[in-house]
Amino acid sequence: MRPTLADLEQKDDFIGRHIGPREAHIQSMLRTVGATSLDDLVARTVPAAILEKSPPAIGEPMTESEALQKLQEIARQNKVYRSLIGLGYYDTVTPNVILRNVLQNPGWYTAYTPYQPEISQGRLEALINYQQMVMDLTGMPLANASMLDEATAAAEAMTLARRVSTQPSNVFLVSGDCHPQTIAVIETRARPLGISVIVGAAEDLVQQDGFGLLLQYPSTTGDIPDYAALTKNAQAKKMIVAVATDLLALTLLKPPGEWGADIVFGSAQRFGVPLGYGGPHAAFFAVKDEYKRSTPGRIVGVSVDSKGKPAYRLALQTREQHIRREKATSNICTAQVLLANIAGFYAVYHGPEGLKTIATRIHRLTAVLAAGLVRLGFTLGNNSCFDTLTIQAGAKAQDILNRAQQHEINLRDFGDGRLGVALDEKSTREEVVRLWQVFSGQSAFGFNVENLDETAPDLIPAALCRTSAYLAHPTFHLYRSETEMLRYLRQLEHKDIALNRSMIPLGSCTMKLNATAEMIPISWPEFCDMHPFAPADQAEGYRVLLKDLEKKLSILTGFAAVSLQPNAGSQGEYAGLLVIRAYHESRGEAHRNVCLIPSSAHGTNPASAVMAGMHVVVVACDSNGNIDLNDLRAQAIAHKNDLAALMVTYPSTHGVFEEEIREICRIIHEHGGQVYMDGANFNALVGLACPGHIGADVMHMNLHKTFCIPHGGGGPGVGPIGVAEHLASFLPGHPLAVGVGGVDANGPVSAAPYGSASILPISWVYISLMGTEGLKRATEIAILNANYIAKRLEKHYATLYTGRHGFVAHECILDTRSFKDSAHVSVDDIAKRLMDFGFHAPTMSFPVPGTLMIEPTESESKAELDRFIEAMIVIREEIAKLENGSWPQGDNPLHLAPHTLADLTAEEWTRSYPRQTGAFPAPHLLADKFWPPVNRIDHVAGDRNLVCTCPPVAAYSAAA
Amino acid sequence: MRPTLADLEQKDDFIGRHIGPREAHIQSMLRTVGATSLDDLVARTVPAAILEKSPPAIGEPMTESEALQKLQEIARQNKVYRSLIGLGYYDTVTPNVILRNVLQNPGWYTAYTPYQPEISQGRLEALINYQQMVMDLTGMPLANASMLDEATAAAEAMTLARRVSTQPSNVFLVSGDCHPQTIAVIETRARPLGISVIVGAAEDLVQQDGFGLLLQYPSTTGDIPDYAALTKNAQAKKMIVAVATDLLALTLLKPPGEWGADIVFGSAQRFGVPLGYGGPHAAFFAVKDEYKRSTPGRIVGVSVDSKGKPAYRLALQTREQHIRREKATSNICTAQVLLANIAGFYAVYHGPEGLKTIATRIHRLTAVLAAGLVRLGFTLGNNSCFDTLTIQAGAKAQDILNRAQQHEINLRDFGDGRLGVALDEKSTREEVVRLWQVFSGQSAFGFNVENLDETAPDLIPAALCRTSAYLAHPTFHLYRSETEMLRYLRQLEHKDIALNRSMIPLGSCTMKLNATAEMIPISWPEFCDMHPFAPADQAEGYRVLLKDLEKKLSILTGFAAVSLQPNAGSQGEYAGLLVIRAYHESRGEAHRNVCLIPSSAHGTNPASAVMAGMHVVVVACDSNGNIDLNDLRAQAIAHKNDLAALMVTYPSTHGVFEEEIREICRIIHEHGGQVYMDGANFNALVGLACPGHIGADVMHMNLHKTFCIPHGGGGPGVGPIGVAEHLASFLPGHPLAVGVGGVDANGPVSAAPYGSASILPISWVYISLMGTEGLKRATEIAILNANYIAKRLEKHYATLYTGRHGFVAHECILDTRSFKDSAHVSVDDIAKRLMDFGFHAPTMSFPVPGTLMIEPTESESKAELDRFIEAMIVIREEIAKLENGSWPQGDNPLHLAPHTLADLTAEEWTRSYPRQTGAFPAPHLLADKFWPPVNRIDHVAGDRNLVCTCPPVAAYSAAA
Repeated sequence: MRPTLADLEQKDDFIGRHIGPREAHIQSMLRTVGATSLDDLVARTVPAAILEKSPPAIGEPMTESEALQKLQEIARQNKVYRSLIGLGYYDTVTPNVILRNVLQNPGWYTAYTPYQPEISQGRLEALINYQQMVMDLTGMPLANASMLDEATAAAEAMTLARRVSTQPSNVFLVSGDCHPQTIAVIETRARPLGISVIVGAAEDLVQQDGFGLLLQYPSTTGDIPDYAALTKNAQAKKMIVAVATDLLALTLLKPPGEWGADIVFGSAQRFGVPLGYGGPHAAFFAVKDEYKRSTPGRIVGVSVDSKGKPAYRLALQTREQHIRREKATSNICTAQVLLANIAGFYAVYHGPEGLKTIATRIHRLTAVLAAGLVRLGFTLGNNSCFDTLTIQAGAKAQDILNRAQQHEINLRDFGDGRLGVALDEKSTREEVVRLWQVFSGQSAFGFNVENLDETAPDLIPAALCRTSAYLAHPTFHLYRSETEMLRYLRQLEHKDIALNRSMIPLGSCTMKLNATAEMIPISWPEFCDMHPFAPADQAEGYRVLLKDLEKKLSILTGFAAVSLQPNAGSQGEYAGLLVIRAYHESRGEAHRNVCLIPSSAHGTNPASAVMAGMHVVVVACDSNGNIDLNDLRAQAIAHKNDLAALMVTYPSTHGVFEEEIREICRIIHEHGGQVYMDGANFNALVGLACPGHIGADVMHMNLHKTFCIPHGGGGPGVGPIGVAEHLASFLPGHPLAVGVGGVDANGPVSAAPYGSASILPISWVYISLMGTEGLKRATEIAILNANYIAKRLEKHYATLYTGRHGFVAHECILDTRSFKDSAHVSVDDIAKRLMDFGFHAPTMSFPVPGTLMIEPTESESKAELDRFIEAMIVIREEIAKLENGSWPQGDNPLHLAPHTLADLTAEEWTRSYPRQTGAFPAPHLLADKFWPPVNRIDHVAGDRNLVCTCPPVAAYSAAA
Repeated sequence: MRPTLADLEQKDDFIGRHIGPREAHIQSMLRTVGATSLDDLVARTVPAAILEKSPPAIGEPMTESEALQKLQEIARQNKVYRSLIGLGYYDTVTPNVILRNVLQNPGWYTAYTPYQPEISQGRLEALINYQQMVMDLTGMPLANASMLDEATAAAEAMTLARRVSTQPSNVFLVSGDCHPQTIAVIETRARPLGISVIVGAAEDLVQQDGFGLLLQYPSTTGDIPDYAALTKNAQAKKMIVAVATDLLALTLLKPPGEWGADIVFGSAQRFGVPLGYGGPHAAFFAVKDEYKRSTPGRIVGVSVDSKGKPAYRLALQTREQHIRREKATSNICTAQVLLANIAGFYAVYHGPEGLKTIATRIHRLTAVLAAGLVRLGFTLGNNSCFDTLTIQAGAKAQDILNRAQQHEINLRDFGDGRLGVALDEKSTREEVVRLWQVFSGQSAFGFNVENLDETAPDLIPAALCRTSAYLAHPTFHLYRSETEMLRYLRQLEHKDIALNRSMIPLGSCTMKLNATAEMIPISWPEFCDMHPFAPADQAEGYRVLLKDLEKKLSILTGFAAVSLQPNAGSQGEYAGLLVIRAYHESRGEAHRNVCLIPSSAHGTNPASAVMAGMHVVVVACDSNGNIDLNDLRAQAIAHKNDLAALMVTYPSTHGVFEEEIREICRIIHEHGGQVYMDGANFNALVGLACPGHIGADVMHMNLHKTFCIPHGGGGPGVGPIGVAEHLASFLPGHPLAVGVGGVDANGPVSAAPYGSASILPISWVYISLMGTEGLKRATEIAILNANYIAKRLEKHYATLYTGRHGFVAHECILDTRSFKDSAHVSVDDIAKRLMDFGFHAPTMSFPVPGTLMIEPTESESKAELDRFIEAMIVIREEIAKLENGSWPQGDNPLHLAPHTLADLTAEEWTRSYPRQTGAFPAPHLLADKFWPPVNRIDHVAGDRNLVCTCPPVAAYSAAA
């Protein structure tokens, strides 16, 4: 029987590339779990009540070539002009060695958040470089390891100010010279928290009362005000002074830390991170020392390992939302690690002298541009500047804007006759001449760049010129040749476990394949080089892409509308709750403010609810890990007058498809509430069930989990929300982007209209490659893989929760609590021992303390699952040796894990077990072994003695 | 003093990225070597007689952005049509995971040839996969690890046939059904060797006498003849039967090995390697077992290490030109490792069932196309086919060709009314319809793809359908998901040392930075997707690029004209000698055939001379390593009547600028000879001196050394030649490319008109980034770095040769011969011990046996040089411990090097020295250690028991 062309075309080839197990493996795994087919497994796992009759139709799968070609056609509809719009976004040159070896390198982009520091020393070092850079440039003593964007950093500055200010006011004062999207996000955030935002001139504001004052330096119009005295006055009135600033400008300007700012933040985008139509970029956040324990976001600190060797780790984790839950002050979970690392490496690559040269060149070009414009008869709106000019063009403005379009240049249009021009790293003297042509309409002038360069004065006020040094640490001086830089990047990369090494079985984190074909388009200039506020007619390609992605996500979720703006899952939660709030308000039920949250919820849920101004009421779970329906009903009835929402994760954080989900939604609706579904586990539903059809009103999707955007070592994330018809009009808007959001749009939750637009192609490609059939199959295999692990380990570990037929969903929780008593083995010991096998630990102690939650995803092959299972079995046998006393406490491979090369190659071996047991507990390790560069890290020492700067080189040599 | 814009623009930024030492380092290094400035160093190193007054002007340096933008503009002048021309080049889909993680990964592309097998196990495994794939698909018992291209492989098949045939004939019979460029290269190669080539119909040829017969299967017109009987007849007449074939076709066709072929070769391009306007691609070469020791090229074999563990290595090296010199039968030096690896990984990724599906799809589309063309009234020239049809279009041909251009499709035009169409992996049913439109001029037909697919018969003769299995080894079955493939690639990569880890100080091999900016353009579709025989008007971008590169190379060398065709240094030598031959012939001096070659020459020199039909006469060197002028003069006089050429490397292979080079050239010219300069060391001259001005008539350049094309793990190489005015008309031409070569052009030396065109952008970008000043500076720093090493090591090792003022050129030779007696330490022991320090060994035993030749290049930083120097000093101290008896013979780190992880973590340590001495002989290794995956490899065992296939998996488990 000859195959037909249809058989041969392999349109579905990618599905088999994305999914780990081969057909024969699937059959054998089905036998192991006791199911006759994938359909049978699904039928016995997913409640019949929610199963779709046929999978939501999003199209036939494409081949990789087809999808990339189609996307290329879409991308070409973007017109990439030079955008000199400014507003916090500036074009930049990504050093090619960083582009290729970090942004395009799976060793960097597939890594997870560095919660397991022993296998994350590479990116932790990169992040501490970033922190050091921020501290040096801002002149502040402490910086965190990145924020989502400048505008949300501003909002975090506001809430930090409120927490630490001794001023009992509820007023936050915001200089009108801040970027408009910064002000808009602050206003969005302030409202549910009951904070009044007053926007005005800084010198007026300081006369008023408020708990905090926000300044921008240089201002959005380009001016460089001297805020030293004003800051002192504000602080005398117990205001916390937060300053938005620009890292590149600070290479030349006296840093805010030197004139007294309490909080300094901004965007690190222009340090080598492409514009990307608005994101993802890393924002930075630095504070005075006294606020370090109140600072939002992650902070990398230096501690020591069990041998006293310096080692990096995430410090001050106890402040974080996943621990503080409803007491949390911020819901930040994902950071922007990949982008922060790129920005930090940009500084490593250029060094202080290189950065200063780049900044000085931009400034000189700006000074020359300004002098020419004055010669051409224009009046400047600002007398001082770093890179940005505001020109009083008056009635000529429209002609100038038209000429700018002919020259393919975008200017900022204030709409009142003022025009803005912001130069950047890509600016040249030719560009300055073109701008003179644009402004004057002439092609020849009585001057040129060279002679104006001789005469035009610098425009930085002398008193505000920077005199202090920065980036003195050797790291910013050692890697100036490309060869040295390349080797440094490789050296750091090889200290970490990422998906290019082995499975990362993190429950809830869905570390699936981030396919190369998905990653390639994010480096295309049509996507990279677009300014978020470029005119809409230049971004037609993005429009097509975003609309198509929104449509497909709507179909997959069963919702009426989608907003792509939230740039992290936590942002999605927050945006979704605001939508619910606005809905209640629109119905005259603004008083509805109780948010029911099951005890099993992700920590971000209560934190987001608090930020949305809601009152959190916890709902109990039963012994099977399901929501206690009686308690839910009781709480719903008790709060029926002010019930705003239920937040529910489905399948549950316990890894189970609750049978009663429809009933749960019904109860909430019955009592006037809306159902917010946490989409963290949506990957267990895609193609099988649609949240919108089950009863959810809002859900966020983690595109960086379910839809293949890589974790980037701890960010970027993307958290769009889908909403039912009645909520569509409340989706977040944006002051600088007409048409974004619903007709009754909330204010923006992110700085950019479409959040992290430039990485959305990843999810678009994934969906296109998989098609209807592939997405469904991925979900089925994710469920199969999890059940295979659970089944194979059931004789060795107790599985905490299963569904009605004994199956788990897409992840399983192993109960390791009893080992604490039986063997003095903690879940941490198991996690560290897994490193000896080359594996990243599963999720620890969530949702149940002392347990391990394992999520293999569909992308792991049977061979890799078997290696992991084998490791877990060996570890169980090792625990047994402690239980039965054949190994001594303390001196055994579990308590001494992870084992380093230094341990294993030591001259003296005095441990109770053989070296080989420590190093090579599984035979495959002999062929390919990952060595944690440090021993187990001492978190107590690190928290007690907080060091968040690059350690002096002597620290290492002393330890070595 | 304010900096001016000119100061700030950093147009020369890349120069500092390319060059390792910073300015302060340069000053301190100058002090170490005893020079007051770089000019002073150059003046005391390079003979004044050859120094240019000012550096050859090739322009100002560009920034990376500028150069890439300029090249993008050039690239856009190429028009990429669908090329269905065939002729051995077929479009293909490079799997994205391979594209990004091999072709775009410095861990793969910066590696050197795997002469040091202990640190090359990753790419050796990849190459043995490739060999296994070739053996399986061709049905032959032995394959080598790649050849330069299909046409030169054909020429090698011819010379192999002559060597092994017992038929005393000088006639080689070539089927006219071979690709025309294959025949042309054979004719070029045959002429100087005195071989007569007879081209004709295979069935006629077999009636004649000859030592060998070349067939093509499928033929260039697409036909699939049954050559079994004809082969038997030819072999009965003592002919060696060589067969050019197509690997993809062989997934469906009975392989030549099964019908008796002696030699089977072809191109592996369509296994995932882009068209690239002709190259680089890997050719394959397989032979019967009895010819294995006569086979050209490198062969990877399986041996064991000192612990009996299976380990890969290059086998049968004693056959190679660098050892056999004038007795060599082939001058092949570089192979196409990177491309062979991509082709091998393509097979690993698709597996046998995937390859068969791809091939079957192509065949079915071809069968459907054929059926439609017949329905449209066309007569086919071939009744059988795999993917290629020849259509008798007669008078309609021109109209069809015109319509094809409108559809942006290229067909093969035989020029006699016949047109060729070859489908490929990218062909679709839409393309078949477009071809019907092109051929018929109609847009609607009474049939469609679907119904013809039902009825059109397969066009592979039943007797020639493949029945045997292939690619049964587990490697071709384990890595089918992208995740598994990614991890396999990473695992192999991490077994090897490449430039992303550490300095590779190989004398003569010039392992300098291969900058990312240089590498990026080779993945641009405008360069990748161009067929070498696409019409010239579609390749305007390539034309501009190649002309500009030729011009710049002409300026830098001081020659009148350049040919970019030779795709390896050895090919350049050969092409250059052919030019000299042709020149003598044109003057009626065809009898001039003596080639003087100094005893210090690269082994390829005499091998190339023999291939060019010359008689090699060795010229002595004096004790300083310089050519013995008296001997040279004597030989020149002795051979003045038949002197053809001198081949001279400059600076010499001894790493010295010979003062008398002008006199040497004068002597040769005086006696009627031409001077061929071996450009292997041209990197020590660029910007300082021009070979064309010194007296050389021809020189090849190693673009893969001097001009930054990476070594790719052992290829590709590129070896253009520059020639003086009087030789320009003899540069190699090409039968399928009008205008290539001089007016009296020799035949082609490579399959493609411009050799490895697609990687020429690398050198173009390098030259553009460096500019006049940067290229000169690179040379100066290369000289400084070499002298710094020589100076710092002078108290520890004797430097063999220096110039008049005691300076070396760009490399230095350390004499380690005395240690053989003093300590029983060989140069091999030192090389293997360097691996323990994380370094690749310098060049061993060339040009002087028992020595080490070190070439740091300009790209290595002072810090890295110091680490290497430190390692060499420690090793010298270790040798001293053997000399003074404080360490025992045999049981010491030198004799037991390299140390593996298994050694160091063994339970029992019974050696005379501490573990730490074995593992971490330098402190920096504690932070970043490379582990050779195997112990020292046993070459004798490997040669004795030659195994060149993937070893069975059991071999590993047995050893583990």
